[in-house]
Amino acid sequence: MSALTRLVEHPVTERVVLALVIVNAITLGLETSPSVMARFGPALVALDQAILAVFVVELALRLVARRAAFFRDPWSVFDLVVVGIALLPASGPFQVVRALRVLRVFRLITRIPSLRRVVGALVGALPGMSSIVLLLLLVLYVFAVMATQLFGADMPDRFGTLGLSLLTLFQLVTLDGWSGEVVRPLLETHPYSWIFFILFILVSSFTVFNLFIGVVVNAMQAEHEAERIEKTGRPPASLEEVLAEVKKLRAEVAALKAPAP
Amino acid sequence: MSALTRLVEHPVTERVVLALVIVNAITLGLETSPSVMARFGPALVALDQAILAVFVVELALRLVARRAAFFRDPWSVFDLVVVGIALLPASGPFQVVRALRVLRVFRLITRIPSLRRVVGALVGALPGMSSIVLLLLLVLYVFAVMATQLFGADMPDRFGTLGLSLLTLFQLVTLDGWSGEVVRPLLETHPYSWIFFILFILVSSFTVFNLFIGVVVNAMQAEHEAERIEKTGRPPASLEEVLAEVKKLRAEVAALKAPAP
Amino acid sequence: MSALTRLVEHPVTERVVLALVIVNAITLGLETSPSVMARFGPALVALDQAILAVFVVELALRLVARRAAFFRDPWSVFDLVVVGIALLPASGPFQVVRALRVLRVFRLITRIPSLRRVVGALVGALPGMSSIVLLLLLVLYVFAVMATQLFGADMPDRFGTLGLSLLTLFQLVTLDGWSGEVVRPLLETHPYSWIFFILFILVSSFTVFNLFIGVVVNAMQAEHEAERIEKTGRPPASLEEVLAEVKKLRAEVAALKAPAP
Amino acid sequence: MSALTRLVEHPVTERVVLALVIVNAITLGLETSPSVMARFGPALVALDQAILAVFVVELALRLVARRAAFFRDPWSVFDLVVVGIALLPASGPFQVVRALRVLRVFRLITRIPSLRRVVGALVGALPGMSSIVLLLLLVLYVFAVMATQLFGADMPDRFGTLGLSLLTLFQLVTLDGWSGEVVRPLLETHPYSWIFFILFILVSSFTVFNLFIGVVVNAMQAEHEAERIEKTGRPPASLEEVLAEVKKLRAEVAALKAPAP
Repeated sequence: MSALTRLVEHPVTERVVLALVIVNAITLGLETSPSVMARFGPALVALDQAILAVFVVELALRLVARRAAFFRDPWSVFDLVVVGIALLPASGPFQVVRALRVLRVFRLITRIPSLRRVVGALVGALPGMSSIVLLLLLVLYVFAVMATQLFGADMPDRFGTLGLSLLTLFQLVTLDGWSGEVVRPLLETHPYSWIFFILFILVSSFTVFNLFIGVVVNAMQAEHEAERIEKTGRPPASLEEVLAEVKKLRAEVAALKAPAP
Repeated sequence: MSALTRLVEHPVTERVVLALVIVNAITLGLETSPSVMARFGPALVALDQAILAVFVVELALRLVARRAAFFRDPWSVFDLVVVGIALLPASGPFQVVRALRVLRVFRLITRIPSLRRVVGALVGALPGMSSIVLLLLLVLYVFAVMATQLFGADMPDRFGTLGLSLLTLFQLVTLDGWSGEVVRPLLETHPYSWIFFILFILVSSFTVFNLFIGVVVNAMQAEHEAERIEKTGRPPASLEEVLAEVKKLRAEVAALKAPAP
Repeated sequence: MSALTRLVEHPVTERVVLALVIVNAITLGLETSPSVMARFGPALVALDQAILAVFVVELALRLVARRAAFFRDPWSVFDLVVVGIALLPASGPFQVVRALRVLRVFRLITRIPSLRRVVGALVGALPGMSSIVLLLLLVLYVFAVMATQLFGADMPDRFGTLGLSLLTLFQLVTLDGWSGEVVRPLLETHPYSWIFFILFILVSSFTVFNLFIGVVVNAMQAEHEAERIEKTGRPPASLEEVLAEVKKLRAEVAALKAPAP
Repeated sequence: MSALTRLVEHPVTERVVLALVIVNAITLGLETSPSVMARFGPALVALDQAILAVFVVELALRLVARRAAFFRDPWSVFDLVVVGIALLPASGPFQVVRALRVLRVFRLITRIPSLRRVVGALVGALPGMSSIVLLLLLVLYVFAVMATQLFGADMPDRFGTLGLSLLTLFQLVTLDGWSGEVVRPLLETHPYSWIFFILFILVSSFTVFNLFIGVVVNAMQAEHEAERIEKTGRPPASLEEVLAEVKKLRAEVAALKAPAP
């Protein structure tokens, strides 16, 4: 371990960076207030720039210290991206980039192990839900194409284009204002449109609910298994394991009995 | 296995059909845009027709290859229905049929094994929930008849007919706008109507919630069991099995002990 | 078993009553339609009266056949109550009683065993949730008294009386329109009222969610246990049972070992 | 145990205090009605004061009896705080303090063991959810800063300040009116703002859902374990325990076998 590695991984360095992330979170929040900006604007911006400079130096040192290993650690890449955004030009049409700079605050996740574990568990649950998310997207797409064809002409602000239909159907998935804003106004011109929407609500709610439950249960099992391995060094015992063990024992007892007389 | 069967079940055929389903999904989506239709309309429609022709030929070949077995496979029947819809006349009053042609895109489910498994699990959960769905429909029906009698005269747009009452009560089940749109306006003329609606919300939410949880838990258990059988060729071990095994062992040890001296 | 008992419990009698309940459900639904009533009104009402008469006779016979046992069966009492309502006077101020006659349709639950089992499971879950329901009512009551004192003067239509506050807070529990209808309008006169409402939403959602999950999990466990007992005549095996069995076995093996030499 | 302790912990004392808490809950509710206050106002206030005096005396006696132990029992401290609030001045700008006096009714929780157990379980679940709550607050904060920068100028009543943005995003977490009130009006000036909001809804719903499930499952496990310990004096058996037991048995049987001949 080089001196550089020791420096960037030293507890004091880590604690200083954590403190700077928190300070930066506060300054970025304060910058949204016009009255605060009017009084302390230049100071806040200067502090912001200084903290950003420290972040850039820290990341550069870490990159030099770890080289290729740096890019194999997803959290390091995450740090690099959110700090990198802050260096992009942010004037004129790039106003969104300016807002994205706030993503830097998410470095708190990289810095606090318990947060990293929670986010890791949530992200780890995503691959297991790919099939059902694909199914949900397919259902949304098919119903959106149909809704655009059927209701686009009569309700152009909600079903005029495929994009608007997708947004409206996502609103229906969340059950927000589906009745008063979408279905009832349509009933006047399309008296049977309720079949379409109630079918969609039933299918999509059922799928979404299934999705969430499945994901969360998987995440909890994984968490439980990880905890168990951490504690005992082994995955949790399974009923199959116990059964196999008892069966072996029976065979051994039977063998014991045979040559007894 | 005939040459025809080999052809329709050949991986290349399957991949070509999958690709065509995806291309068709995109063209059907593009057809909803008037500006795209103005420029590429005829080409898109021609492509659509060509893909449909391929689907018809493919299904016909599969039907000839498998004969009666074709109709015993629910996925094949599903394919037949969604492709068959596209051949129905779709002019004038049959505009809905035109929209239903988009259902063809659901052939993706038939083509992608992981999607087929998810949908199979969801559909497989339905029989287990028949009792509680029947109960929910009964509750909806009884409350709808009562609501039509009690509030139909004062709020004809929401409770004027049995059908409108059913729709309004379904809205209450989803908790969407129940207070501002339905209950509060009624309080002026029916000061005690809140008893009716709060009772309905409590009963129906409780039933729906129970329904969903039950279904999903059953589906997960079935999935878990199927996974286990796939891996080990046997259903998962049960505590009862382990207990029986230990008890047999005890009997054997006791028998061993008796003739020992 | 008397001839009377055999008659009222005969499968044919049961099937006839079930059929009449279903027919009655349909006639009660048709009676909500003014156009149907204009054409078939007298016929429907006569059919209704005839079915009601059959129900009264059937219940009377069952009561005579079973006597005190009749009142010990909650389903019989339920039948008696919903049929009894139909005999009450239903004119003038008793219009609600007329609507309550539709409750007769719930006799379907008494008649179909699978429905009876589902309802039994749901009702059986209620005692287990009494503590948390009491807690929820307490939270609702305390927050309603506070809301009436704090906001009653400025928003009399939502917090003017304790009853209105309870209704509005129940609306917040269901998260329906809490922001646009309740909290935002209040922010103008009570800029810190969001603390009150967000605290209430967090506490009540958490409690309600906990309530539902707890109830449903208990109901499922009870169902699972009942199923197991039905199948094997015994409650499901527990890990404790297996462990005790293995420990006894160990003791026996140890006893076996001792006198062996 | 001193005579004082015996007095304050005597069942009769406890039952009297419980009765007074319930009476007080009712009087505090009645005080919200102007018509009741007009007729019985002075009597109710006098009763209120009398009950409060009893509470103060009771708490003072308990404090004297238990001394330091009093402050180690969180329920006693809770009682002290909610009774203490009633002694604060409540005129003029302190109107909120007057409303807070109703918190006294929560003493019912301290008085009824089953309520105390439920609240204890809910509160006991909080530490386990600290990481994911911190994550949720971080997500809310970052998105609120970004929303204030991006949409503050065009929608000042919802995103004008960091506080308003936080409130609006909390509204989005509850899915209440997100479409009609927030996202659709913004689409006119910010056609791509849907990306921001749908991303936020997906991330926050997923996190909140995960949070609730995790908490409740933990609480149930803890409850189950506590119940088991109460019944058998030991924590519930684990599969690991059974497996270890069987393995020891196998070793013993093997040892039995070896010296057998």
